[in-house]
Amino acid sequence: MAPQAFFKNEPDAPILKSAKLPGPEGARRSAELSEVFDTRSINIMADYPKSVGNYLATPDGDMLLDVYAQIASIPVGYNNPHLAEIASSPQMVDALINRPALGNFPSHDWAEILKKGILKVAPKGLGNVFTALAGSDANELAFKAAFIYRRQQERGGPDVAFTEEELQSAMNNQKPGSPELSILSFRTAFHGRLFGTLSCTRSKPIHKIDIPAFDWPQASFPQLKYPLDQHATENAEAERAALAEVEHLIQTWPKPPAAVIVEPIQSEGGDNHASPAFFRGLRALTRRLGVLLIVDEVQTGVGATGRFWAHDHWDLPHPPDMVTFSKKAQTAGFYYGDHALRPNLPYRQFNTWMGDPARALINAAIVDEIERLDLVRHTARVGDYLFAKMELLAARYPDHFRDLRGKGQGTFIAFDSPKRDAFLAKAKEFGVNIGGSGASAVRLRPMLIFQEHHADILLDAFEKIVKAL
Amino acid sequence: MAPQAFFKNEPDAPILKSAKLPGPEGARRSAELSEVFDTRSINIMADYPKSVGNYLATPDGDMLLDVYAQIASIPVGYNNPHLAEIASSPQMVDALINRPALGNFPSHDWAEILKKGILKVAPKGLGNVFTALAGSDANELAFKAAFIYRRQQERGGPDVAFTEEELQSAMNNQKPGSPELSILSFRTAFHGRLFGTLSCTRSKPIHKIDIPAFDWPQASFPQLKYPLDQHATENAEAERAALAEVEHLIQTWPKPPAAVIVEPIQSEGGDNHASPAFFRGLRALTRRLGVLLIVDEVQTGVGATGRFWAHDHWDLPHPPDMVTFSKKAQTAGFYYGDHALRPNLPYRQFNTWMGDPARALINAAIVDEIERLDLVRHTARVGDYLFAKMELLAARYPDHFRDLRGKGQGTFIAFDSPKRDAFLAKAKEFGVNIGGSGASAVRLRPMLIFQEHHADILLDAFEKIVKAL
Repeated sequence: MAPQAFFKNEPDAPILKSAKLPGPEGARRSAELSEVFDTRSINIMADYPKSVGNYLATPDGDMLLDVYAQIASIPVGYNNPHLAEIASSPQMVDALINRPALGNFPSHDWAEILKKGILKVAPKGLGNVFTALAGSDANELAFKAAFIYRRQQERGGPDVAFTEEELQSAMNNQKPGSPELSILSFRTAFHGRLFGTLSCTRSKPIHKIDIPAFDWPQASFPQLKYPLDQHATENAEAERAALAEVEHLIQTWPKPPAAVIVEPIQSEGGDNHASPAFFRGLRALTRRLGVLLIVDEVQTGVGATGRFWAHDHWDLPHPPDMVTFSKKAQTAGFYYGDHALRPNLPYRQFNTWMGDPARALINAAIVDEIERLDLVRHTARVGDYLFAKMELLAARYPDHFRDLRGKGQGTFIAFDSPKRDAFLAKAKEFGVNIGGSGASAVRLRPMLIFQEHHADILLDAFEKIVKAL
Repeated sequence: MAPQAFFKNEPDAPILKSAKLPGPEGARRSAELSEVFDTRSINIMADYPKSVGNYLATPDGDMLLDVYAQIASIPVGYNNPHLAEIASSPQMVDALINRPALGNFPSHDWAEILKKGILKVAPKGLGNVFTALAGSDANELAFKAAFIYRRQQERGGPDVAFTEEELQSAMNNQKPGSPELSILSFRTAFHGRLFGTLSCTRSKPIHKIDIPAFDWPQASFPQLKYPLDQHATENAEAERAALAEVEHLIQTWPKPPAAVIVEPIQSEGGDNHASPAFFRGLRALTRRLGVLLIVDEVQTGVGATGRFWAHDHWDLPHPPDMVTFSKKAQTAGFYYGDHALRPNLPYRQFNTWMGDPARALINAAIVDEIERLDLVRHTARVGDYLFAKMELLAARYPDHFRDLRGKGQGTFIAFDSPKRDAFLAKAKEFGVNIGGSGASAVRLRPMLIFQEHHADILLDAFEKIVKAL
């Protein structure tokens, strides 16, 4: 028996009104927008009020099955009724029109809003949060916490005063006040596009070229062979080598790393996986060397891998020092456990808004909805269903579905396609919106309300695409 | 005859229920929050639903006249009815629950939302916008545009391809792909706290210490003597010297500046003013040397200086290349005019959300309200009224009101106080919430709906404070 649809008003299948996307109205709206806004990265001009559940509407009346979901950031469906209810509540109106400077003038209900949402799903052992606006600034806040903590340790503890030389040199961007420390990231990682995070991002030259960067180290991310269970020995060797490189870089890089930042699955970089053993090794290594571990769950967090946090798969004996979030959380920040990651003095980690209570309220509604519909377990199950069928498809079309990956990782599934860009373009002709990552990966990022019957439509489209390519 | 109150439900005067702030309920809420959120920078625990117009409520029922306004970021009053109307509209619900990745999947009404708000008040000559989330990322986006533009010029135009060496070195954070270029800022400037903007921020060591920074240049900001009209000759000399230093740094700094960033009035750094002639000189100088000029209007923009943009006071023959905004705009981004500031390829300036349509809708409602009530002209008039009375007060208490400044700059008024922190603490005892800036400045940042009768209450409080100090 088919499970009940979460969204009863979804169409039964994609609807294509336009012979080719964009249709005339989409093209007109896009041209209008491009007069004032850079639209060269436009993928689809959308009509959100007409979108529903897993389906993205266009201004021409097309309805596309959306397994890209605003770059992996819509969690519980377009026009989710429970979110709509919260969005029209008096508390939301208050949050929108009386935007507080949360560090100076928090609202009396800020603790309650946090506890209803962001903190209710805090990773194990990390019960504190510093709120932010997007993944990139969340990561930079975590970096700052790491640098401040590191210098505090080097100085001999939080009570040791800054020297006059430190205070003065910091004003000139010179050491010792502006220390020559670094953050270590991995090759093909993506952590954002601000100046600190972009220095850690190593996905594509187009993200980085012409922008000044810090001289920070990068370690090789283990390049595993798929399917993972058929290449266990060589993959374990690749992971050991990567850990050895991390250790070497930490011990030798002229600007010592205060932290290592890592994604559970390298998402923008092409859906590159590593094993729980690798991450346990990385946690053990960073603890041994006194370097903090920041897990960037901006894309992997909030259920898509079949666990609320992707790092829940790792069975870590000690939690990460910090975990950053954004995207499907619809708000952002970093979690931490150790109060020593609060700087020794106020105003060292501070900015005007420090997040947005309106987005934190949406987050709380998302958490409610995930619990009400048991969406994390649901996603694990649908992911297994989809992956099993994709294995069959890959067996039939091995040239088109290479290195299928994401088994047991919910719907966080990807494969390489030799004609990737044509594959993605063709998908639209069959009414499906799919995204790519890295050089040749097709990545699936459906919402948490993606169900078996949507998987069947997607699988059917896959077959049509490869036959048409 | 007194002008009509914009908010009829404001109290006639501040209300103090608590013998000392915070009252018991505020203290309890604050302790609760501090378990999960760093509250050491807390100023007042607020109750926003009970706040109204210029008055900030506390959970204990206190009502403070608020001339700090969430660090200069509330424009048209707490619980403004027009904003409440927009905040409960179906369009707002849509923006909140269907958050788009604006660069890839803009909504069909995004151009319209921009034109109703952000672009309706675009600075002269700068009809394009790149949207962001807060002042700090807005500035970093402007920096990236400047670096990309600079390298494009050096390369010989937008059509010249990247070299293989550039592409590969960028991935390693090394030149030539990661160029050794800089942004020039001024001493005592504040431009944000992310890694690029913090490298340009020179306000206080506590903002910068322990955080790695780029080796970027800083020029002296002219240190003017107040009142400006009594020190015209020496101030002009100070401004000439500052411009000469800017020219020297641009010509000699080993990492050449791609742009100069400047605040119209250095706000966090202590309300430091410079003359329109200085800024005209800076515009001429940067044009002559082929360096872009970014005007950071994050704190000065949106009416508080008696013009919509503070740089409207300068009468520039050529507009700035970019103008950044946030705070009272309640959304953020940078304006630009020249299409060459759109990078030659898509995805060079890009991120998942690229702003927030919900906040852009609030911005449009703010623009409406400013026009409906003619609030920019209003603020110019109330500012003149307040400044004239403060001059009298300063004449009577010269030790307490030093270097009164901001004449003709709307309500963007400040003065130095030898007992600044005590002054601010004492203000609360008389029911007024005021902020400081720099080492010893008291800065006034009332909302645009601050009226003459509020000025009278504030002036009365000033007198009580200095008598009590």
